[in-house]
Amino acid sequence: MTSEQQCSGSRIAGCSFSIHPMSDNFIEIITNALENVDTSKVWMQTDDVTTTVRGKMVHVFDVTKAIFLHAAKTGEHVAFQGTYSIGCPGDSDGDVYMAADDKLQNADTVKDMQQPVSAKFSLYPLGGGNYMDTIYEQIEAMKQQVTVQSSHYSTKLLGETLAVFHGLEQVFRATEESGSSHTVMTVSISANSPSHT
Amino acid sequence: MTSEQQCSGSRIAGCSFSIHPMSDNFIEIITNALENVDTSKVWMQTDDVTTTVRGKMVHVFDVTKAIFLHAAKTGEHVAFQGTYSIGCPGDSDGDVYMAADDKLQNADTVKDMQQPVSAKFSLYPLGGGNYMDTIYEQIEAMKQQVTVQSSHYSTKLLGETLAVFHGLEQVFRATEESGSSHTVMTVSISANSPSHT
Repeated sequence: MTSEQQCSGSRIAGCSFSIHPMSDNFIEIITNALENVDTSKVWMQTDDVTTTVRGKMVHVFDVTKAIFLHAAKTGEHVAFQGTYSIGCPGDSDGDVYMAADDKLQNADTVKDMQQPVSAKFSLYPLGGGNYMDTIYEQIEAMKQQVTVQSSHYSTKLLGETLAVFHGLEQVFRATEESGSSHTVMTVSISANSPSHT
Repeated sequence: MTSEQQCSGSRIAGCSFSIHPMSDNFIEIITNALENVDTSKVWMQTDDVTTTVRGKMVHVFDVTKAIFLHAAKTGEHVAFQGTYSIGCPGDSDGDVYMAADDKLQNADTVKDMQQPVSAKFSLYPLGGGNYMDTIYEQIEAMKQQVTVQSSHYSTKLLGETLAVFHGLEQVFRATEESGSSHTVMTVSISANSPSHT
């Protein structure tokens, strides 16, 4: 792979994400969140801009959801920004994690966490002409999970963190299963914001 | 427009973005940054997740760059997350701003600001099959502006804020002018991070 916009050649999924605690204690909050999450079933790498996890789709969502929840439970205003991707032509780092089983490592520790959030997501099925139809279908599907509102360049979601992530995973999986060869989904989530209404 | 993933029908550009100061003073930092930036040539709306600006491409970049710089000059660890979009089928809010002239409202106040950053960007020319070629061409073009490194799902940029934004604007404009009917570019920028190397 010679390009700098690397991604995966098989059906390995991944997410490049950042956790932003709006607090002087941001380092401690991020470090504690990472320590509380079992990342043994994903490839993981952190640099000074984002953290990237890659592996089976179920574990990518399990890990990102858990890290966000452990940061948000501090009560500080915390933002999550993530780009989920699957099917991008690219490298093979982390392919070994595709042999993991499907048992979620973090579902038990977060299953009772209540954390209302506001979120925005955008879905980009790349390389095909009918991508807007796919987007509209998946926005309809999301309404089964959480409150959905119009927004510029994205779709706004209001609800509990667990429901929001469940909806996001469903939408991402359905888009991939519908035949999109390369799917990207960007997500912004805000918890404990003083401007939440 | 009946869908919730709204965007523009003409060639109006826009950006949905968030500024995340990792500081207890995040409200003051964001408020001060907004007060120091002239937003008179863009349509602007803020909710509890992001701020959206829309108008001519030059003003969208002028305003987002200036807001980030005014927040980063506090010396706090500040992250910027933005989704730039042009050509998405959609609504017509803000079309009146397309009548503005091209004189930049904030270029003078930021032109001497030095602020090294680490950034990641991803380019998504939607609806066409040769999108990866466009991406690779634009990554090459970016190397004229800043240091470029490989990264998963994105391209990493290291340099001065002004050079990074100049490169991003060039890449976004070139992609649109190459005939992409709907172009999305996501950008993550980090300033004053304790983990910058």
